[in-house]
Amino acid sequence: MLEINPYLDEIEISVIRKISEACTKYKNISGDKCLINLTIGEPDLPQPKIIKEDVANYIVEAKLGYSQLGGIIELREEIAKYYKDKYDIDIKADEIIVTVGSTEGLSTAIKTVVLPGDEVIAPLPIYPGYEPLIIMAGAKLVKVETKDDGYELTVEKLKEFVNKKTKAIILNYPSNPSGVIISKKNRDDILNFAKENNLYIISDEVYSEIIFEGEHNSFLQNGYRENVILVNGFSKSHSLTGWRIGYLISSKKLRDYLLKVHQYTVTSASIISQKGALVALNKCSCIDEQIGIYRERAMKVYSRLKEAGVSAIKPKGAIYIFVSIGEGNSLEFAEKLLESERVAVVPGVAFGMDNFIRLSLVSDLDELLEATDRIIEFINSPRV
Amino acid sequence: MLEINPYLDEIEISVIRKISEACTKYKNISGDKCLINLTIGEPDLPQPKIIKEDVANYIVEAKLGYSQLGGIIELREEIAKYYKDKYDIDIKADEIIVTVGSTEGLSTAIKTVVLPGDEVIAPLPIYPGYEPLIIMAGAKLVKVETKDDGYELTVEKLKEFVNKKTKAIILNYPSNPSGVIISKKNRDDILNFAKENNLYIISDEVYSEIIFEGEHNSFLQNGYRENVILVNGFSKSHSLTGWRIGYLISSKKLRDYLLKVHQYTVTSASIISQKGALVALNKCSCIDEQIGIYRERAMKVYSRLKEAGVSAIKPKGAIYIFVSIGEGNSLEFAEKLLESERVAVVPGVAFGMDNFIRLSLVSDLDELLEATDRIIEFINSPRV
Repeated sequence: MLEINPYLDEIEISVIRKISEACTKYKNISGDKCLINLTIGEPDLPQPKIIKEDVANYIVEAKLGYSQLGGIIELREEIAKYYKDKYDIDIKADEIIVTVGSTEGLSTAIKTVVLPGDEVIAPLPIYPGYEPLIIMAGAKLVKVETKDDGYELTVEKLKEFVNKKTKAIILNYPSNPSGVIISKKNRDDILNFAKENNLYIISDEVYSEIIFEGEHNSFLQNGYRENVILVNGFSKSHSLTGWRIGYLISSKKLRDYLLKVHQYTVTSASIISQKGALVALNKCSCIDEQIGIYRERAMKVYSRLKEAGVSAIKPKGAIYIFVSIGEGNSLEFAEKLLESERVAVVPGVAFGMDNFIRLSLVSDLDELLEATDRIIEFINSPRV
Repeated sequence: MLEINPYLDEIEISVIRKISEACTKYKNISGDKCLINLTIGEPDLPQPKIIKEDVANYIVEAKLGYSQLGGIIELREEIAKYYKDKYDIDIKADEIIVTVGSTEGLSTAIKTVVLPGDEVIAPLPIYPGYEPLIIMAGAKLVKVETKDDGYELTVEKLKEFVNKKTKAIILNYPSNPSGVIISKKNRDDILNFAKENNLYIISDEVYSEIIFEGEHNSFLQNGYRENVILVNGFSKSHSLTGWRIGYLISSKKLRDYLLKVHQYTVTSASIISQKGALVALNKCSCIDEQIGIYRERAMKVYSRLKEAGVSAIKPKGAIYIFVSIGEGNSLEFAEKLLESERVAVVPGVAFGMDNFIRLSLVSDLDELLEATDRIIEFINSPRV
């Protein structure tokens, strides 16, 4: 018999996909309530027109040959400038790798530093894309409860789970699905602890631009960043999802290793998408307006839930709201909600928390509030 | 100390890059012979205009959101149709994954089937992108001499190297760097042997469209293809190098596993590049003219070398010619050739054969023949 990588059998079909597939059953049933799909993690706000126009011209006029290794220098310099302007951090172009979206960045980071037998720690709730990469590296994901600390990872909690097998900590603030951001203190404590104990910090900051309240505390801002690998991308900030464009920032020394993995895995990101990212950084101050829209949605949905006595984690960033369903089986809840109310949500179990559901804030406000009302009614109705 | 994946230390900086870097030294020295760079594996023929124009319109008009998992269905159906029309093979859309160039296809294939401790067999000369992927998988590359069989792998030779650790065979016909194609008989013998011994065939057929003599024998054509993973792409056939677009074809069962690796490594290929590939298949019968140009270059360079008594492998496809330098150190040869004749070539050692150099056929004919003359002069001149 042909043998296949046995780790791959441990990776299950995502719960998100199960719900998406169930959705198709309820589409366009005439005389029925319209289906509202809140499962999608893709911004609904359009891609900036200037990016599309500039890139269309570029395609016609440019050679579109192989990219420089690790990404075109113009884009890497512009990313460095962005971090200088926004966070006052000095990053050099040769500390940046342009990746095929943040997914490839994550995959490359994990393949570079995580070895078979290692443990990787991450706080709950957790984005479901991390565990498969950790499994494929032959390592083990250790999930840490953070409810008592407002869903932020603290160094005290972290210490309980660190042992000599621990290699890295994966963090995702602003968080998908909770919208929680991390405080300066927690960030610095975790960084200091990681420094003392030779642990990598893989910081997925893909929602860094979408902040409703407080400020984003990047893991690059602390000054010490020898063991930090920052993952970011343009899918959420500029809605460039289908373009597959993101980046990694690390020390130069670490970058030399990350680059080997990146190069042999994908050669480079598409040169066209790299141009799109360059235009995004050069010409799109359009983000503020966009954040305003997400903020209004988040606050209005949160308020409506609160008024009805349904508890949720108040999002401070990202494009989701994580809603408590009390005790329960979140997949069953999501299936029944879809069946009786025609609202599709992602079961919290996908993020390691079975007593929650995730609503995406990427529909217009009216639709979101209509869905929220249906969810409230469903939660408050007597169920068998 | 921070620990890094130790396999990455085994991966050296490519010899190709060393020569490229040495090239920059000799650029634009006034009063000097002009530099002719034959190291590049990138087609010089322009990308078809129709692809650029259609994709530019698509960018302006389409949503450019996330791709369907494994690639948009229109493109996968068009690839299937292409294999039906060209080879009369029945491939289904759900046996295809659209990848980030053929590199990601290779990387995904190897990660899916090759495990730590495995051995992977490949004939010499060998494309230098394979070994790093095999090393990263914790496996060992076993290189097989093929000189006595006209640089084709035969089943007899293969048998000498197969043991119980052997997991897969990687083949690359038409070959980079030799331009050799594989005969039907050798292909079928190898396939039958692989079938009997539960070995995977990873067939990199990225030069399948560029044939000068004879015909391309795809590993999918044999009828039995349960253990075949075909890797292909649009970089060489349609010059779409910077677009990063390719595909994998396998059995449906194997595809389910390949898809997990692909999805968690890159999410998908750029939706823009997917559109480019779709236009390439739909509207570009322009390839024939292009092949004619490569064929003329190959034949004229080959003849000129032959006339001068310099032996080379006669290329039957691809975009290279592999030239014998007798005994010797090919890196030193390439460095001296660059120094004294201002011609940059890739040392054969990069392909596991130190008594050869590789010339790319991606410069215009006059320049190629000028470079050939300089190489002949260099080979025939007395050296210290």
